Amino acid sequence: MKKLDNYSLLNQETLLSTSNGYVGMRANFEEGYKNGYTSITGTYINGFYDTSEIYYDEICYGFPRSAQKMVNVHNAQGIYIYIDGDIFNVFDGNVIEINRELDIKNGYAIRKIRWQSPKGHDLEFTFKRMASFAKLELLTIDVKIKSINYTGDIQIISKIDFTVDSFLNVDDPRAGNDSEAMLQLRSVKSRDNTHMLISDTINSNLCVATCCSYNVPMDFKHGETSTNAKCILHINADESVHFIKYITYTDSIHHKNIENTAIQIAKQSALEGINFYYDEQKKYLDKFWQYAYIEVNDDKNVEYALNYNLYQLLSSAGKDKYSSIGAKGLSGGGYDGHYFWDTEIYMIPFFTLTMPEVARNLLKFRYQVLNAAKDRSKEMGHKTGAKIPWRTISGSECSSYYAAGSAQYHINADIAYAIIQYYLFTKDIDMLKEFGYEVIYETARIWLEVGNYNLKGQYCINTVTGPDEYTAIVNNNYYTNSLAKYHLEWAVKLGDVLKDDDRKAFNSLCQKLVIVKDEINEMQKAAQNMLLPFDDKLNIHMQDDSFLNKKEWDFENTPKDKYPLLLHYHPLHIYRHKVLKQADTILSYVLLDNVREDVMKDSYYYYKQRTTHDSSLSPCVHSMMASRIRSTHEAYDYFMSTIRLDLDDINRNTKDGLHIANAGGAYMAMVYGFAGLRIKEDGIYLRPVKPNEWNSYSFKINYQGQLVKITVDKAITIHCEKQIEITIYDKRYVVKKKLHINLV
Amino acid sequence: MKKLDNYSLLNQETLLSTSNGYVGMRANFEEGYKNGYTSITGTYINGFYDTSEIYYDEICYGFPRSAQKMVNVHNAQGIYIYIDGDIFNVFDGNVIEINRELDIKNGYAIRKIRWQSPKGHDLEFTFKRMASFAKLELLTIDVKIKSINYTGDIQIISKIDFTVDSFLNVDDPRAGNDSEAMLQLRSVKSRDNTHMLISDTINSNLCVATCCSYNVPMDFKHGETSTNAKCILHINADESVHFIKYITYTDSIHHKNIENTAIQIAKQSALEGINFYYDEQKKYLDKFWQYAYIEVNDDKNVEYALNYNLYQLLSSAGKDKYSSIGAKGLSGGGYDGHYFWDTEIYMIPFFTLTMPEVARNLLKFRYQVLNAAKDRSKEMGHKTGAKIPWRTISGSECSSYYAAGSAQYHINADIAYAIIQYYLFTKDIDMLKEFGYEVIYETARIWLEVGNYNLKGQYCINTVTGPDEYTAIVNNNYYTNSLAKYHLEWAVKLGDVLKDDDRKAFNSLCQKLVIVKDEINEMQKAAQNMLLPFDDKLNIHMQDDSFLNKKEWDFENTPKDKYPLLLHYHPLHIYRHKVLKQADTILSYVLLDNVREDVMKDSYYYYKQRTTHDSSLSPCVHSMMASRIRSTHEAYDYFMSTIRLDLDDINRNTKDGLHIANAGGAYMAMVYGFAGLRIKEDGIYLRPVKPNEWNSYSFKINYQGQLVKITVDKAITIHCEKQIEITIYDKRYVVKKKLHINLV
Repeated sequence: MKKLDNYSLLNQETLLSTSNGYVGMRANFEEGYKNGYTSITGTYINGFYDTSEIYYDEICYGFPRSAQKMVNVHNAQGIYIYIDGDIFNVFDGNVIEINRELDIKNGYAIRKIRWQSPKGHDLEFTFKRMASFAKLELLTIDVKIKSINYTGDIQIISKIDFTVDSFLNVDDPRAGNDSEAMLQLRSVKSRDNTHMLISDTINSNLCVATCCSYNVPMDFKHGETSTNAKCILHINADESVHFIKYITYTDSIHHKNIENTAIQIAKQSALEGINFYYDEQKKYLDKFWQYAYIEVNDDKNVEYALNYNLYQLLSSAGKDKYSSIGAKGLSGGGYDGHYFWDTEIYMIPFFTLTMPEVARNLLKFRYQVLNAAKDRSKEMGHKTGAKIPWRTISGSECSSYYAAGSAQYHINADIAYAIIQYYLFTKDIDMLKEFGYEVIYETARIWLEVGNYNLKGQYCINTVTGPDEYTAIVNNNYYTNSLAKYHLEWAVKLGDVLKDDDRKAFNSLCQKLVIVKDEINEMQKAAQNMLLPFDDKLNIHMQDDSFLNKKEWDFENTPKDKYPLLLHYHPLHIYRHKVLKQADTILSYVLLDNVREDVMKDSYYYYKQRTTHDSSLSPCVHSMMASRIRSTHEAYDYFMSTIRLDLDDINRNTKDGLHIANAGGAYMAMVYGFAGLRIKEDGIYLRPVKPNEWNSYSFKINYQGQLVKITVDKAITIHCEKQIEITIYDKRYVVKKKLHINLV
Repeated sequence: MKKLDNYSLLNQETLLSTSNGYVGMRANFEEGYKNGYTSITGTYINGFYDTSEIYYDEICYGFPRSAQKMVNVHNAQGIYIYIDGDIFNVFDGNVIEINRELDIKNGYAIRKIRWQSPKGHDLEFTFKRMASFAKLELLTIDVKIKSINYTGDIQIISKIDFTVDSFLNVDDPRAGNDSEAMLQLRSVKSRDNTHMLISDTINSNLCVATCCSYNVPMDFKHGETSTNAKCILHINADESVHFIKYITYTDSIHHKNIENTAIQIAKQSALEGINFYYDEQKKYLDKFWQYAYIEVNDDKNVEYALNYNLYQLLSSAGKDKYSSIGAKGLSGGGYDGHYFWDTEIYMIPFFTLTMPEVARNLLKFRYQVLNAAKDRSKEMGHKTGAKIPWRTISGSECSSYYAAGSAQYHINADIAYAIIQYYLFTKDIDMLKEFGYEVIYETARIWLEVGNYNLKGQYCINTVTGPDEYTAIVNNNYYTNSLAKYHLEWAVKLGDVLKDDDRKAFNSLCQKLVIVKDEINEMQKAAQNMLLPFDDKLNIHMQDDSFLNKKEWDFENTPKDKYPLLLHYHPLHIYRHKVLKQADTILSYVLLDNVREDVMKDSYYYYKQRTTHDSSLSPCVHSMMASRIRSTHEAYDYFMSTIRLDLDDINRNTKDGLHIANAGGAYMAMVYGFAGLRIKEDGIYLRPVKPNEWNSYSFKINYQGQLVKITVDKAITIHCEKQIEITIYDKRYVVKKKLHINLV
């Protein structure tokens, strides 16, 4: 990654960003940019937000009046290095070599530059950045300067800045809207070789502190909206100096005393030294990769790209009860840092299978904000239940365009699906008792509110939008109805599970939630009679009641530069056509795996022809379905564009942040796709295929405490620690330590 | 109308406003209000607008970026009268008597107050306000002060004010949005006993001048944003003085030199004197009422209310090529002064039947702005054709909520319908040649763009919203499809009419519009195969494909204060239910009169049960349909609430302006309703009924130059000047001067 053109730099800011799930920093240059370069400078705290009013030219009842937005907090990236009067930067002087990479095993990003100053001094700079997994408040920037031929002083100015330069594309609804000021500076301070900024959000009544400490003594000077720390180091030719900036972020959601905590951690870090934190980082990641790492023996590029995505999932995931995973993680301001359904459907499966404790925590987030969802349900006209917001940070609905927002009722089932799947995989019944069942039940109530029986006695869910946002406000979206059916069935079944486990505890839960037998019967009846639109002639499920009556899209005469369609056609024009952003019928097949294979196949090819993949959530699903119907070559192609989506900026918006759901999709395309893993009532199912391009691949899961390794080559080999039961190609096996059977 | 409570005053501001179709002034008190009173002070010029940016939190392609808004122009209402140091106003001193009325025969509003000043002087004030139909730029305020017991000086200060106090309800999408400044003051001037303000719009590059002249010499003094004219008159007890303010408005859309024109008209008016303009007004109105006046012999209250509505129609209608009729006429800022489909469907019928030259002009407005509609068509994804904007002033789409805006494709057919009906009534083939056919054809093209054949070969129009905005984004809305069918049929037929009339002229029109035979065939085929959703079991047309599968609305448990539903329920909740704002299927029956009577009847009762009449466009339609199926008592009830809608503030928002479409609906409920008039290919049809409450009613039409009077009592009697053909109860008659047949 050597390119210095603006486009590449913007992408690298995202791709090389460093995050730990609490705080994330884009990979902006410490020394800044040349005039004329645009940069999206950003540092974000997961779950930390301001609110801003939403203005509507024509308002309707129930439109959210304000939205949370992830705050671009104080910028602590600035480090300005002066060599004999020249300021180091890659645009002046002579860059002899530059190299940037993200080391996913050690958990830091490195930028290495061999540079000749305008005055001819030769030096090598190494910037190492880390977001510590061991100490979530801590980011470090470790600068090593090696002199080739320069002897003299190096002056370093390190800055914390209140103002953040950013730019956004007002025409792209997917970009964030962070043009408004969201913070106001409260104070600038320094003490004990640390300095800090403290600011308050404008509307949400929150505050954030940023404190820096250093490995060398500094002189501090405060400006009006920034604070500088200065030192002068001496260097001799052929020697190195080391400058380390320990940056801590604290905020009033997560910390009681943001000022003291920030200073204390910053000071402690400087005291313990950078190597201590590098070691801790390595330890954390060794444990992570022990379960997460996927091997593709014959293609190290694929292996890197795939595991790069897994690393980003880890880096993005909130690890406390106040946060989940934003659409862009903490790598950019796209989608305003909101949490969507993507977390549950695309990202949590990875954590469920490899880090169940992180999955459990992410699932619990929805419980933390369940009251807001119950309020939203009332606002949407329902008498009871919880309506999960389409996009949110602190729990209330932030979607101002309901057709592709609040209308996506399926998010209720998606959240429940993730909890159910987690339960079936872990058998963590305490989770159900603690919060899981309450979320499942309250969200299930919505289906009784929203649905009704048609004249044929079929249960209809009308006037909703499925995941495919290229048709909106439809009746009986197959995805929605099929997931709602699953949701309702399990809302009933898990009640029985809980009752059997502890009747008294269950009864008191029933009292709390006012669960009555009639309601449970209604749920069962609705599930049994759920309308799942099917066309006999085409042998496919219809995306919704009317999909087949729509006009065909003229793909032949749609030039490439008209994609994504949403940026070039009015929504009504798109909605009116048989054209998909992502095939949600196919996603239902992947998630539920409950229809005949010939139907899967016919549907897949029907929708494939009409799917633009304008959503980054789309190709991975096609990859999984293609694997499922044994069209491995197609699966491989979709898999490749999935794992390279951000690395190659396929959707031309990586600069706004990583597509974290796609990263989860990359994992799923491998594990649910090629390996065909499914979690069902009676345990794990596998149905592996292998792309011709590889001789073997392998991955591991954390199955109820056992590390299970699955290797697929000409055969499928399963290693477990003790004993597991597993279903392969629909045949059940008891595996004691090892199983080896041939691929079908 | 004597009430001085704030609520009544706000309503009176609207009800007693004076307009002539070019300029309109709300009936605010000349002397202003007491502290704590809110008033919507307003003066509006038809078609005069500023533009303002529309902000979207989540924008999609093709959302209009700016909207025109009717400007609340300079306020020239202020007249402050000082009696012995006391300022006259109705809140201080002692109001012995107050009376206000709109004289619809003479064309002015009168306010008469017998007042005792705080010092005990007894006087009588008469304010007469007129918007001149003879001189459209002219408004007059004529103040007569009669002294009972006061002898001394009266000081009068007359004002033109740049700033306008107004207030609006930000939560009501139907109110206007005129909180932003739309004007900036350019200059304040006085000369020749006139004074004036000239201002420029902020964004639309237009300007407006307001000039006042007087019947007495005045002293002028300019403030920063206003100009005052002062005079002192002497009065003796038992004598009167007369003060007249001639107010002229000019604007840069309608006038080349706004300053000179305004001054010239103001001076000329003062010179000619008020009585000249009263005479002209009377002459104009005598001619108007000659055709328009409706008699209800047994109920003078009904007769007044009905003709009050007709007077407001006249007062609201643009009489030049730059303007049409706003949703509130010129009586208030509601709906930002936008023109909707209401003009063509609810208001133009009145003009077609009584003042065809005004109708013709209103129809032409859409031609003036056809290019904007063609641009909009492209923006909406269509290759050709014109897409009429849902709401506009100068021609571009101003609707920011497309579900109840741009999605209402039916407006294309509505505009065409009005032109076709006008043609069939007047046989004005020149209108077709001059502009009518071009509008019909370009708007008809949209149906080929938007529609497609389903697998059964039926022509579908998907993803549109019908007039009933309580279901949105549906497929095959019956109203839309049935009107589109009519539109397409006549686009083809009128081509033949033009060809037969003048083949050469038609050919050159075909060249201009690139009309080819294939396209005409496609139109014919689409019309023939148009899907008109019908349910055999219920014997009704379905409002759209999915209407019957929706959930029933729980009317029983919906308290009265939850109406109109749109202000209390999320749109998705409303859309999901069998609940109507207005029954558009029934409106189609009224307009097209082309279905079996049993179907009309069954549909009417089916939809009636589910219609809230939350739209002011609704009750009149039910009245017409009830008459059509001979349920005269129901028709009468709907008729009564129609004619009293604004007079009794039934919808609780008369303060925002008159419901002009409802005024047109009042006319139609009488003429299309009770008298059962329809305009068909072979002329006029009547199917009269008579409410039991009346012994007789009568109205007149201007039928191809002949005044035709229709009287309904126990019989129907038709008087015409020469000879007409007419169909009564489906039987054809040739009427020579008079026809008399019994009612069925």
